[in-house]
Amino acid sequence: MKSITCPGFKAAGIHTGLKKNKEKDVGLITSDFPASVAGVFTTNRVKAAPVLLDMERVKTGRCRAIVVNSKNANCCTGKRGMQDALAMGRAVSKALNIDEKDVMVASTGVIGSPLPIEKIKAGTPDLVQSLASDGFMDCAQAMMTTDTVPKLVHRQGEVNGAAFNITGLAKGSGMIAPNMATMLCFVCTDVIARPDALKAALLNSVGKSLNRIIIDGDTSTNDTTLIMANGQSNVSLENNAGVDLFQQVLDDVLITLARELVRDAEGATKVVEIDVRGAASSDDARIAAETIANSPLVKTAIFGEDANWGRIAAAVGRAGVPFEPDHLDIFFNDVQMAAKGLSCGDQAEAAATAVLKQPEFTVIVDLNAGQGEASVLTCDFSIDYVKINADYRS
Amino acid sequence: MKSITCPGFKAAGIHTGLKKNKEKDVGLITSDFPASVAGVFTTNRVKAAPVLLDMERVKTGRCRAIVVNSKNANCCTGKRGMQDALAMGRAVSKALNIDEKDVMVASTGVIGSPLPIEKIKAGTPDLVQSLASDGFMDCAQAMMTTDTVPKLVHRQGEVNGAAFNITGLAKGSGMIAPNMATMLCFVCTDVIARPDALKAALLNSVGKSLNRIIIDGDTSTNDTTLIMANGQSNVSLENNAGVDLFQQVLDDVLITLARELVRDAEGATKVVEIDVRGAASSDDARIAAETIANSPLVKTAIFGEDANWGRIAAAVGRAGVPFEPDHLDIFFNDVQMAAKGLSCGDQAEAAATAVLKQPEFTVIVDLNAGQGEASVLTCDFSIDYVKINADYRS
Repeated sequence: MKSITCPGFKAAGIHTGLKKNKEKDVGLITSDFPASVAGVFTTNRVKAAPVLLDMERVKTGRCRAIVVNSKNANCCTGKRGMQDALAMGRAVSKALNIDEKDVMVASTGVIGSPLPIEKIKAGTPDLVQSLASDGFMDCAQAMMTTDTVPKLVHRQGEVNGAAFNITGLAKGSGMIAPNMATMLCFVCTDVIARPDALKAALLNSVGKSLNRIIIDGDTSTNDTTLIMANGQSNVSLENNAGVDLFQQVLDDVLITLARELVRDAEGATKVVEIDVRGAASSDDARIAAETIANSPLVKTAIFGEDANWGRIAAAVGRAGVPFEPDHLDIFFNDVQMAAKGLSCGDQAEAAATAVLKQPEFTVIVDLNAGQGEASVLTCDFSIDYVKINADYRS
Repeated sequence: MKSITCPGFKAAGIHTGLKKNKEKDVGLITSDFPASVAGVFTTNRVKAAPVLLDMERVKTGRCRAIVVNSKNANCCTGKRGMQDALAMGRAVSKALNIDEKDVMVASTGVIGSPLPIEKIKAGTPDLVQSLASDGFMDCAQAMMTTDTVPKLVHRQGEVNGAAFNITGLAKGSGMIAPNMATMLCFVCTDVIARPDALKAALLNSVGKSLNRIIIDGDTSTNDTTLIMANGQSNVSLENNAGVDLFQQVLDDVLITLARELVRDAEGATKVVEIDVRGAASSDDARIAAETIANSPLVKTAIFGEDANWGRIAAAVGRAGVPFEPDHLDIFFNDVQMAAKGLSCGDQAEAAATAVLKQPEFTVIVDLNAGQGEASVLTCDFSIDYVKINADYRS
């Protein structure tokens, strides 16, 4: 793989002893120049210490470094947890000789165990020593928990002949919110951007990507997405052309990462777009799509490659949104399985079953009750999902 | 097993050809005398034809018979579905020479396929011929889908020296709302009761039993609970002593059946009471308990016998109810695993793990945010759950 970089940024990932088998467990991303920063964080009332720390620090709009560990979420760890998060950032700030407040901290892993901070502190000099412009893959590997592959994306855009770069890395894993608590996503870019413009673009893209994926409906205590912009290109978000093109490329980066998260979801064998149309409002469409995506019955049927549209109808029926059951249309890709709430018969079933044998497909549900539309990306519920999550802490 | 009866009632269950291997698939319960009736039905917007029919018929407050089939839910079957439900009731009313409107109809099984009504009609003479006062077990067997055991309970009460009987039968199975669409519960009693008093008692008991179980969060399109009272005892709900004692015994019957439904849930290996205390309100407590009971991460951890309290904290944290994470206490039976949001350490973990190895236990979550309490009964998420539901229609 061609090594991925982002001008003016360095990254690293090393083994400090948190994981077994010498696997990388602490990562670092630094900007050679003061960068603007914006972030979005978990809505869970139980928030990990590093999330609480970053929510404060992001308010300055300034950042030089993000340090991240896997294997331990530093969540439900009380005052000691906050002290450990501060110490983790401080070790990096000292080694880099930068302001402690310019370091963001992230953790992912088991909830409720104290962070092995001494191992992380002991490893920090090596971590900083390892920083390199092509170190993003090492960092992406250091973030992994039950992920089976690192997720790293680079895209380039051009505004009036000036190029800019966006490099994003993420870890998700099984589900959106296993005990390992879960989704982390970091984005580096060389555009020129004030923190508020960066935040607007980030929220916009997250709404189309990371907030549209459902793996198991459990919201993590550690979800964190951060974007840093170090202004090393000639592209600025101060002008409209820059904003529009940056948004397009950022959307592309985050949608790609979101899709990779679902594809690598714990035990997942299928990536499925749930596309609800004809709802009374777009909110209703979103609620219906999320209810379908969260239904264990729908998800196990998909795992079984069973075009079981009755379970989809039952899920929409309990979603609490208005529609007439005998107006319901359901499609698997372009194969209509239900028309006006009734089965389309054996031939349709055979064609739909062929669609379900594919690794990725779309379920379209038309409520025929209005103009509201929404879609979410989800995966199936497999035997391996249960195995992974029954055995996780052992 | 001593055969179960209820004075003035008969029941039957036979094979008509809907299921394979000569298994019983159509059941019937009759009252020898006009009976009062009350019912509660699914809240799913998609309702099966027999549910829509019964919701109308129950308004008369009168009933003589309940006919039920398994294997096919007669749901998402349009006008033909309603014609089939009417025909199923009419065949019984003719054979019994009773008013068609006094027959309630119930179906459970696959959604979206036409009901094989001709087989049911052809079997009806045999069904009526088989009626017997000890036929309840046959009827309970005829209702089963993925249930592994029939659920049949009989209790007797006494008011001022006068005895009364309550006989209840149910089918649930895997989950509360598989494609096989799902929970049916029928109760016969010989008390003297007007329909409104019967309904009040039923709602009261259902709130403590069938509405407190969560298997997978999917609400069935066919859920139906009916109670018939034929007045053949000397106990009347017209007096307070009768009402109180009847309520106690009805609670016992429905709580017992609800527990049996969870114990026989698809693939379940554990029955777990989720008991939330110290919430700001009892509604908040219920929402928190339901969120925990619905969490795939909590359910897979229980399957793995992992005292993973962090997943419970994360589930409560996303429930949307107010509490302070550092006030949270979590117990497995009498073993405290988390105190003020922090782990109680390795010894507690070892003791909690021993609790999780038991087939039935209680998880207590104290939010320390008020006086609200609620509990729900749930089960784990096992590998067999996925297998059963991936392969259901095949």
